[in-house]
Amino acid sequence: MSLQDFERVKLVTLQRRIASAMRRFEEEFAAATTGDTPLTREICAHILQGKSKRFRPTLLLLSAKSRNGLDPRAITAAACVELVHTATLVHDDFIDAALTRRGQASINEAWGGSAALIMGDYLYSKALEILCRNGLDDAVRLLSSTTLLMSEAEMLQLELKYDLGISEEQYLRIIHQKTASLIEASCRIGASLNPRVQDHAEAFGSFGRKLGLVFQITDDIFDYLGDARRLGKPTGQDWEEGRITLPLIAALKTAGFSSREAQALRAAARNGQERSRSWPEVKTFVTDHGGVEYAFTKARQYGEEAKAALAPVASGTQKDLLAVAVEYVINRLN
Amino acid sequence: MSLQDFERVKLVTLQRRIASAMRRFEEEFAAATTGDTPLTREICAHILQGKSKRFRPTLLLLSAKSRNGLDPRAITAAACVELVHTATLVHDDFIDAALTRRGQASINEAWGGSAALIMGDYLYSKALEILCRNGLDDAVRLLSSTTLLMSEAEMLQLELKYDLGISEEQYLRIIHQKTASLIEASCRIGASLNPRVQDHAEAFGSFGRKLGLVFQITDDIFDYLGDARRLGKPTGQDWEEGRITLPLIAALKTAGFSSREAQALRAAARNGQERSRSWPEVKTFVTDHGGVEYAFTKARQYGEEAKAALAPVASGTQKDLLAVAVEYVINRLN
Repeated sequence: MSLQDFERVKLVTLQRRIASAMRRFEEEFAAATTGDTPLTREICAHILQGKSKRFRPTLLLLSAKSRNGLDPRAITAAACVELVHTATLVHDDFIDAALTRRGQASINEAWGGSAALIMGDYLYSKALEILCRNGLDDAVRLLSSTTLLMSEAEMLQLELKYDLGISEEQYLRIIHQKTASLIEASCRIGASLNPRVQDHAEAFGSFGRKLGLVFQITDDIFDYLGDARRLGKPTGQDWEEGRITLPLIAALKTAGFSSREAQALRAAARNGQERSRSWPEVKTFVTDHGGVEYAFTKARQYGEEAKAALAPVASGTQKDLLAVAVEYVINRLN
Repeated sequence: MSLQDFERVKLVTLQRRIASAMRRFEEEFAAATTGDTPLTREICAHILQGKSKRFRPTLLLLSAKSRNGLDPRAITAAACVELVHTATLVHDDFIDAALTRRGQASINEAWGGSAALIMGDYLYSKALEILCRNGLDDAVRLLSSTTLLMSEAEMLQLELKYDLGISEEQYLRIIHQKTASLIEASCRIGASLNPRVQDHAEAFGSFGRKLGLVFQITDDIFDYLGDARRLGKPTGQDWEEGRITLPLIAALKTAGFSSREAQALRAAARNGQERSRSWPEVKTFVTDHGGVEYAFTKARQYGEEAKAALAPVASGTQKDLLAVAVEYVINRLN
């Protein structure tokens, strides 16, 4: 499958292939996203109004679906994975002091930091409680080690904030733990509930991990290029908030870490006013030194590895659809 | 057992009876409280230096220990319960903007709000990951529903901040969910790992729940009376931070919610400057209307119910020691 074939591929195209499962997922997710106190209910209603692409549930359901149907527990697991994902977004937004999320006010912005902290805890506990209640012990096991990785990555990201000395290895560790791990868990949980592929759940996990790396690297490239489908979305958010990502890491390596330009950027990174002003220079620096191309090449490489991981174990429609998911993620850039 | 008999009872007296288990607990807790990034390691080391009474692990181990010994998984479970408890304290301190905890700087004060948020998530995930890895599925199930209750209670507490209209029922719901539930889970998990009483794990849970209510009510009384053993600890923290607790709720009921005094307090509660200034009046009001006595009577009543819950199912040394735990909690007030 060439890139061209899927240039216009959208996630909804994939979701249409599992339309009934997605509908049941939406019902279960809505039923789970509700509270037992007035404020919790209010914030849950707000969350349900936000636009989410449902990327993780889609992958879980694509992995879980076989010709013979779908284990209903996959719907529950998908709802819980989306709850965990939402919980991490709520906490992330607090950490980044983000004002908006999914086209509306962030929880921290609308209800304050304490409510955001509690809400994240609530959604995460809710996910685990539902999984336990439904006897999805394997999913609990996977998700508890995944969220451990995710919180470690958050801390590492905090430690390396504004640090232009971050290595590609450190960057890869962060994106593996903070993003790829939950996508890996989604695919793995889905496969483990699918009798036709459950013996290959680990390979599905590898697929998800590689795809997750592609997902985060392309997201990080967006912050330099802008996203064609989201015109008007400002670039430079990562630089502003101190996240040094692959395009800049690669450009710094090419330019030389002790080059004059690199030294100037290092100084700018640590100074709030300088930082905002210097964004156009950062962008030029990254473009001039091929940072975006480097990151894009890496993303494509992980995309190929993702498809390769699946090749020996998936077949037919499932294999095709999951390959399309890879192309979707990569082609968000075109 | 009369109150007099245990007037001088200390928690360490109980802990001496399970000294070897406590030592193994400390080892496992220290081994679990460590990080995989420099900052996580630094904060873990800080946490291990804080003084904790280890109340929940003590109860878990007392419930788990039989004449025939102790299931080693109880040590692991105790370490994980203490991790969960620590996680909630780290998040609570952020919510309350607390400066100190266990005799040293709070995480939010020393490392900032983001680090505190991530650290709480980390410790909680760590606890679940360890429990899953050791096949303690029942404990995972219990703790996930417990932390759900705890986060709901945190939200309810936030909603009812500075609200003098809070009812005794709402107060009891909050303290049941935020404090008693984890103590209930501790006793229940311990009993479920003890072959001699595992069929009565629910009764041990009831004991823990009632004891937890005593624990929180007496803690709330401390905030009016001061704690004899912690001379110099300032009173009025709850009032200052907007937590309306049983002594004040009871006094307001006695005085009449529309009395002139009650109206004045209501006005003061909502105004930061007024609030700090009005603490002596609040204290007098609560004393004059028997609020502390009412709360103390309630605490003693729950203490009796705790012992009654255990009476039909525990025996011998175990029964005595757990009764001593009740007296310890109540007599912290004497």
